[in-house]
Amino acid sequence: MSDPETDTPLSEEARHAAKMAKKKAARDKIMAGKSGEKGLVIVHSGSGKGKSSSGFGMILRCIAHQMPCAVVQFIKGAWDTGERRLLTQNFGDLCQFHAMGEGFTWETQDKARDITAAQAGWAKAKELIEDPEIRFVLLDEIIIALRYGYLDEAEVLATLAEKPPLTHVCLTGRGASEALIAAADLATEMTLVKHPFRSGIKAQAGVEF
Amino acid sequence: MSDPETDTPLSEEARHAAKMAKKKAARDKIMAGKSGEKGLVIVHSGSGKGKSSSGFGMILRCIAHQMPCAVVQFIKGAWDTGERRLLTQNFGDLCQFHAMGEGFTWETQDKARDITAAQAGWAKAKELIEDPEIRFVLLDEIIIALRYGYLDEAEVLATLAEKPPLTHVCLTGRGASEALIAAADLATEMTLVKHPFRSGIKAQAGVEF
Repeated sequence: MSDPETDTPLSEEARHAAKMAKKKAARDKIMAGKSGEKGLVIVHSGSGKGKSSSGFGMILRCIAHQMPCAVVQFIKGAWDTGERRLLTQNFGDLCQFHAMGEGFTWETQDKARDITAAQAGWAKAKELIEDPEIRFVLLDEIIIALRYGYLDEAEVLATLAEKPPLTHVCLTGRGASEALIAAADLATEMTLVKHPFRSGIKAQAGVEF
Repeated sequence: MSDPETDTPLSEEARHAAKMAKKKAARDKIMAGKSGEKGLVIVHSGSGKGKSSSGFGMILRCIAHQMPCAVVQFIKGAWDTGERRLLTQNFGDLCQFHAMGEGFTWETQDKARDITAAQAGWAKAKELIEDPEIRFVLLDEIIIALRYGYLDEAEVLATLAEKPPLTHVCLTGRGASEALIAAADLATEMTLVKHPFRSGIKAQAGVEF
């Protein structure tokens, strides 16, 4: 690369600055075309870590921006969830928290009860989604309930299609269907690369719950 | 499937309960073998969303468990970060927050300054990692600084290898090297499936920042 005025070679610093200026110009151009504000349907699926914790990270951002938000947990873990305690104790005015599951499905061994719990969760979720005051709804592990056939996917998709325009809805859980991915504006597949459970490490506070 | 005592076919409910009981037994057996508590090296990489927000979700969990924790942000976004405000205002006693970057690298166009900022971030990060009182350290977007060569990867890996045994360190950013993945206990690749920036939607509060 050389200076077009003098045709002398540019220093490494000047080359870097020129390259970065070009990147910035390209990015600014892309960003200028994005005027839309739109409530998003967000899907976090895959076998890796981070599906739920990323949803909770977004809840944290909503709280920081004073945006009313809500969490519905479809599958309650066997452990006490730290998030629930923290959110309800500190930010109960901004963030509603509804834990509807009765433990993991393979711990209850009662399909009828699991279906009832999932459907009660969905009734609450629908109410929250349809309330335009609530700007972000996290449906944690709902994709598991959909995959087991405990909820009617067509009804869930219809509710997402008709949600208030500025409301974001984030659905998490492994095994998202193609129809759900198709309905999403933003979809991320969290892929497992390495997991310590495989080498004898138990679930730990802060990381897993 | 039939009842082994009477050889009569099981009802659908009983079949489900038997299947779930088997799953639970298998899971319990796996979990019983996991006695270890160990500070993990956690890597969130890939082109998808959720690398940083999942890290912040884990910070939320640490705070919920009263575990002292810290965040070092290596690349500060152009926007004000809601997380920073929320964490420092509400949980400053449990969670330290250090924003070391000077905006995205392609916005500063000053390589020397970016290197200085990244190295100052790493000096702080090293101090935090080496303090056994701090149980979780989030190095947000450090992988970008490593990829640009602004930090010495060998030094980062050496510090991770010698960290206090119960400290978790989470490193985020796209483009993790093979050596970093090899050093991780838990690694997730966040893969982009769909992104609304591609269809004219701008970055929005709660979701992106």
